[in-house]
Amino acid sequence: MDEQKTELVERKGVGHPDSIADGIAESMSRALSKLYMKDYGQILHHNTDETQIVGGQSAPAFGGGSVLEPIYMLLVGRAVTKVGNVRIPFRSVTKKAAIDFLKKTCRNLDMDEDVTIDCRIGQGSVDLRGLYDTRKHLSNDTSFGVGYAPFSETDTIVYETEKMINGKWNKEILALGEDVKVMAARKKDKINVTVATAMVDKHISDKDNYINVVQELQSKVLDFASGLTERDVKVDVNTADNYRKNILYLTVTGLSMENGDDGSVGRGNRANGLITPYRPMSMEASSGKNPVTHVGKIYNLLSLQIANEVIKVGKGDIKEAHVRILSQIGHPIDRPQLASVQLVLAKGVRKSAVVKDVKSVTDAWLADVEKITKLVVDGKIDTF
Amino acid sequence: MDEQKTELVERKGVGHPDSIADGIAESMSRALSKLYMKDYGQILHHNTDETQIVGGQSAPAFGGGSVLEPIYMLLVGRAVTKVGNVRIPFRSVTKKAAIDFLKKTCRNLDMDEDVTIDCRIGQGSVDLRGLYDTRKHLSNDTSFGVGYAPFSETDTIVYETEKMINGKWNKEILALGEDVKVMAARKKDKINVTVATAMVDKHISDKDNYINVVQELQSKVLDFASGLTERDVKVDVNTADNYRKNILYLTVTGLSMENGDDGSVGRGNRANGLITPYRPMSMEASSGKNPVTHVGKIYNLLSLQIANEVIKVGKGDIKEAHVRILSQIGHPIDRPQLASVQLVLAKGVRKSAVVKDVKSVTDAWLADVEKITKLVVDGKIDTF
Amino acid sequence: MDEQKTELVERKGVGHPDSIADGIAESMSRALSKLYMKDYGQILHHNTDETQIVGGQSAPAFGGGSVLEPIYMLLVGRAVTKVGNVRIPFRSVTKKAAIDFLKKTCRNLDMDEDVTIDCRIGQGSVDLRGLYDTRKHLSNDTSFGVGYAPFSETDTIVYETEKMINGKWNKEILALGEDVKVMAARKKDKINVTVATAMVDKHISDKDNYINVVQELQSKVLDFASGLTERDVKVDVNTADNYRKNILYLTVTGLSMENGDDGSVGRGNRANGLITPYRPMSMEASSGKNPVTHVGKIYNLLSLQIANEVIKVGKGDIKEAHVRILSQIGHPIDRPQLASVQLVLAKGVRKSAVVKDVKSVTDAWLADVEKITKLVVDGKIDTF
Amino acid sequence: MDEQKTELVERKGVGHPDSIADGIAESMSRALSKLYMKDYGQILHHNTDETQIVGGQSAPAFGGGSVLEPIYMLLVGRAVTKVGNVRIPFRSVTKKAAIDFLKKTCRNLDMDEDVTIDCRIGQGSVDLRGLYDTRKHLSNDTSFGVGYAPFSETDTIVYETEKMINGKWNKEILALGEDVKVMAARKKDKINVTVATAMVDKHISDKDNYINVVQELQSKVLDFASGLTERDVKVDVNTADNYRKNILYLTVTGLSMENGDDGSVGRGNRANGLITPYRPMSMEASSGKNPVTHVGKIYNLLSLQIANEVIKVGKGDIKEAHVRILSQIGHPIDRPQLASVQLVLAKGVRKSAVVKDVKSVTDAWLADVEKITKLVVDGKIDTF
Repeated sequence: MDEQKTELVERKGVGHPDSIADGIAESMSRALSKLYMKDYGQILHHNTDETQIVGGQSAPAFGGGSVLEPIYMLLVGRAVTKVGNVRIPFRSVTKKAAIDFLKKTCRNLDMDEDVTIDCRIGQGSVDLRGLYDTRKHLSNDTSFGVGYAPFSETDTIVYETEKMINGKWNKEILALGEDVKVMAARKKDKINVTVATAMVDKHISDKDNYINVVQELQSKVLDFASGLTERDVKVDVNTADNYRKNILYLTVTGLSMENGDDGSVGRGNRANGLITPYRPMSMEASSGKNPVTHVGKIYNLLSLQIANEVIKVGKGDIKEAHVRILSQIGHPIDRPQLASVQLVLAKGVRKSAVVKDVKSVTDAWLADVEKITKLVVDGKIDTF
Repeated sequence: MDEQKTELVERKGVGHPDSIADGIAESMSRALSKLYMKDYGQILHHNTDETQIVGGQSAPAFGGGSVLEPIYMLLVGRAVTKVGNVRIPFRSVTKKAAIDFLKKTCRNLDMDEDVTIDCRIGQGSVDLRGLYDTRKHLSNDTSFGVGYAPFSETDTIVYETEKMINGKWNKEILALGEDVKVMAARKKDKINVTVATAMVDKHISDKDNYINVVQELQSKVLDFASGLTERDVKVDVNTADNYRKNILYLTVTGLSMENGDDGSVGRGNRANGLITPYRPMSMEASSGKNPVTHVGKIYNLLSLQIANEVIKVGKGDIKEAHVRILSQIGHPIDRPQLASVQLVLAKGVRKSAVVKDVKSVTDAWLADVEKITKLVVDGKIDTF
Repeated sequence: MDEQKTELVERKGVGHPDSIADGIAESMSRALSKLYMKDYGQILHHNTDETQIVGGQSAPAFGGGSVLEPIYMLLVGRAVTKVGNVRIPFRSVTKKAAIDFLKKTCRNLDMDEDVTIDCRIGQGSVDLRGLYDTRKHLSNDTSFGVGYAPFSETDTIVYETEKMINGKWNKEILALGEDVKVMAARKKDKINVTVATAMVDKHISDKDNYINVVQELQSKVLDFASGLTERDVKVDVNTADNYRKNILYLTVTGLSMENGDDGSVGRGNRANGLITPYRPMSMEASSGKNPVTHVGKIYNLLSLQIANEVIKVGKGDIKEAHVRILSQIGHPIDRPQLASVQLVLAKGVRKSAVVKDVKSVTDAWLADVEKITKLVVDGKIDTF
Repeated sequence: MDEQKTELVERKGVGHPDSIADGIAESMSRALSKLYMKDYGQILHHNTDETQIVGGQSAPAFGGGSVLEPIYMLLVGRAVTKVGNVRIPFRSVTKKAAIDFLKKTCRNLDMDEDVTIDCRIGQGSVDLRGLYDTRKHLSNDTSFGVGYAPFSETDTIVYETEKMINGKWNKEILALGEDVKVMAARKKDKINVTVATAMVDKHISDKDNYINVVQELQSKVLDFASGLTERDVKVDVNTADNYRKNILYLTVTGLSMENGDDGSVGRGNRANGLITPYRPMSMEASSGKNPVTHVGKIYNLLSLQIANEVIKVGKGDIKEAHVRILSQIGHPIDRPQLASVQLVLAKGVRKSAVVKDVKSVTDAWLADVEKITKLVVDGKIDTF
């Protein structure tokens, strides 16, 4: 990829409405998984992959404005709601998980005033539950996973810049909101990085202050990104601003969903944390799907793990690995219909030199696919 | 009334679903009134008198069970939503008011897990707002208020018993929930008091413990009520229980709305805190109505104030006072269509001896009807 | 009552938001009752007495305006949702019943564009269902019913006027909406009748036309009411109108709920179709309650039937009958805690002459209380 | 693509929950666009691209079962809600559009009993509306469109098979539901086609009948697909069925959303009607976005048009065309940041021979990008 002429990469930060939806969806699935494990020793059927966020209305103002109308969040999905005669508190548990995620993620959001959370998670379809109740885990769908490694330079710049903004930097600059979008377009050796960050009004006194914060962020991103590549880097921050017309990206909560931006699961980052339109991607939403039989989730995460490990065992001989896994509904998930690994080798390396290692990595992961489930439930791999 | 043969009085305690609905409705109106006063110097049009509570599902258990499905609360009403170009945060403010009321009232309710609050309060009808925008406050409806004083013995027993349970006693006995219903039926000189109180499971270890708490409460109520009357008092607590079949009034939160009991505004206590089917009552819901022009609210509260003061100035000569006030839509609220005061005089007292005082009390209150508004907004009179 | 000095009577017509809520509630209960009867031979537990109507927004205009935002209706209540392993389509059935009621009642309402119907009816509390599953029907609550007969002249005027408007007259005058409110205040021999009727914009060409319709209605009501009494009758129609300021009661659908008027069950007419603040009334909402064990419903309807029949058997000797019935939770509904019949006798008639007949009417109805259930389910008695 | 080794293509039919969501979203946008055009001569700002479908519950049965709990649909998005002082009936119009779409698409769905439609579309963000109010249409986002032509054989088989099932065949076989999913996996010269079709219970008498319908469909698909390719075709229908365990894909409405399947916008087919994980795809949801400034929608549709026309002008010289267009927020939409066309040429054809034609096609479309808007509003191009 680094040798192709053009490249386009995007990451929606953790406070983007689509990421919030993903994060809630995944938190609910983890909470249910843990509840089921604790009470029944296994993860029972559920899919909580359809959270819908309906933007509120707000009136930001320098020094602190107010949210006029709360953001509305509809939790949607399916779960095992009853085991024998025991009813499971699936709605309380998922609601709690959603709230905990928001509290952890959105530091300027007032949970009482700014958000309404409603839950319509219900009982799942009997057919799918039928498939589920077998000992051996069977694919619940004909579905497809895809993953690649390593990140290109552009990928890395986009991914790490967002992590810095929502990590180290927003502790230093309180005005930075969590709703961050980073996009980079590379044409040959020029990388244009565009950052959009919602600013938090109570930490900004006036327009000059706002402009200073934007410039400070621009300068930090430029330094940081330039350290990750030899290429030319150009950075723009909040390009939709128009200082003359007083159009600024100012918010009360640091989140665009406070004022009309809606969000839903599966519309944002893919399982590797990026949107990469120049590469094959899966449409499948990973967040919120059950981590036991939902191949749309497992195979995406699995492909990524395999690709990463293939690069590692390649010790430089393998420059890029693309993994694709295709399931067949009703068959065991460790026996996909198709699993292909495409390699880009370093100059002079012959395929025969690496093929054994690659096959062994792939087979090992397929044999131990339940490891993915465990990593997911323990929160050790991200899904967006 | 004390001399009539039969009497029936009921009070739904502060945790009863209908009272919760009333309490939220009134809290929202107070919050909006304060907001409007602060920002615009007057109470702008609103009516928030239609909160709907949809019961949840729960699984109580000795030592502590769980809420399975959150209670759903729909905030309904009308408000001025915009003044000039400034939008008013009416939804955030009402939602906050509802939550604050619940936090204050329901000590065992987990606001995150157990409750969902949605708000559909919207802009009011233009016509009503038209009427409202005049300087002189005009009745918004042809409506009717009614009030009496003093409380009969039975009234007092019912009212004060609930206050004790939700006051002193539930601090002593943690197992007592806030959802209390007290009913008394008097036949001549016998008063049967029936109390239903939701018990909080985490403070009750087993059935024997439950029975003990019920007996302790029965004994407290009997002592207390007997102290308020010379008549025979009999007290039953939680009569729907069936110990043999293990049907107990056990709850997780001390609130029946956790498990299927719905509630709405205006279905519970009248403005004097009681339901008194042997006396004239107004159907009008007082809670949540705007305290400036809504005669359904103001005249009920006003009638009660007049009746109370009439008894006071009567110094024993007036045994009972019944006040009725009828508005006419579009006319100033201090000029009702009809205001009548019916008196029951002490033996030997002549009407002419008291009529001047009564008239003077009535006229004074009508002239100063805005005092009711102030008392309401300051939370100095209850509406349920 | 006709001999008392003052009297106040009101009826909310079938299109008033509170009546719509009542009508939907009762339709849902009937539909569930029929479903249960058909499939299980008995009426299973349910209460659908909490429908909440949230007013929409509209822009009426002469010749035809438009509804801007649909009216929202939340169906609330409890029902048996499962018998053995068979799940009952309680939500589809109640939704259908609500829609059918609206189609039948509101001839200018477009069900697709103007209304949103959501259903949160759920499973009831286990305790109440426990009580229910016994053969002998037991009271589900300590509750109270009240009824009187006959209607006073004022009662009759109010009741029949609304029936005419929503019957014969709105077939003649298409501009008349179903949202009608009739109120009459009698002072001695003067009866002031106030009628408010929403006018349907598409049938009204301009302000003059509007004024004509109002005058025509005023004249019809005056003729009609004068035919029912010897007293002086005065009639006002749409008194909140202000022609100079172009404040008219003009609507798109003939229903005030299209523009901000909310409604809920139990806030309107009592079981006899009237609101009569000068008489004892029950707070209990009759509409939507299950017609088998819910004493709040059954005893109100029963009291009314008894009062009517007492008057009939009295053949002129009994001028007025007031019936009160008090249940006790957990006891059979045909054995109330208290059943009292108060009589106003014709001059010269002695109590002993009628007491036997009255007792026999009362006992017969109590013994055959299930007849009430049947009348309700068959739609032969109204509840509002 | 036809010469690559493996290929995977999927199409979610018009009754799949994600397609229903897309269809509703797009219908709402068209209805709003028409309304705005009619009343204001231009398409005002809106995005209705977030419909959420929450699956109901059903109990299908041979000969006809019932929907137990209605499907819930939440309409979400933003729109200009007021122009000057005139309020726009955006909620009634969008609700109507959604219902009309459902009526047209789902022939076995009872709109009264089986579906609940709620609308939370609100006012958009001021910033975006600011951008919108300029004469020259400006991109509302930094976004990306992608398109290719022609369809590969596998693409064509998948696409046309679904069109046949939901076209000619479901008129012949009434048991076929609209919820169809077609997937084809090609390995070299073998194409495995998997079809899942919800069967409508009222048209199926028993299991044998069900099996016959499945076999008839399998045979039709096999004949049809074999006519579109020289390759080996294998067809499976409803592979998740298990006849022994009586697991069948039987539904009341022909729609899986009746029983627990949720759906949302942008999770299904891309703008060309397919999901093609072996090709670059845009994550952007096209359906429901405004067709004037939303580059995520316009550039996807535009890329597709350009690719198709490039193939046409190539007259066989161009075997495949891939188009990518990248916008920049705040710049005119006819001046993208980047527009690239990649070609696969027929053997022996030189780039120079076609480049002029390709450039001219591309430039013409960019200059006349508003044609896309018109095609969309007139319903002449599909978005899913």
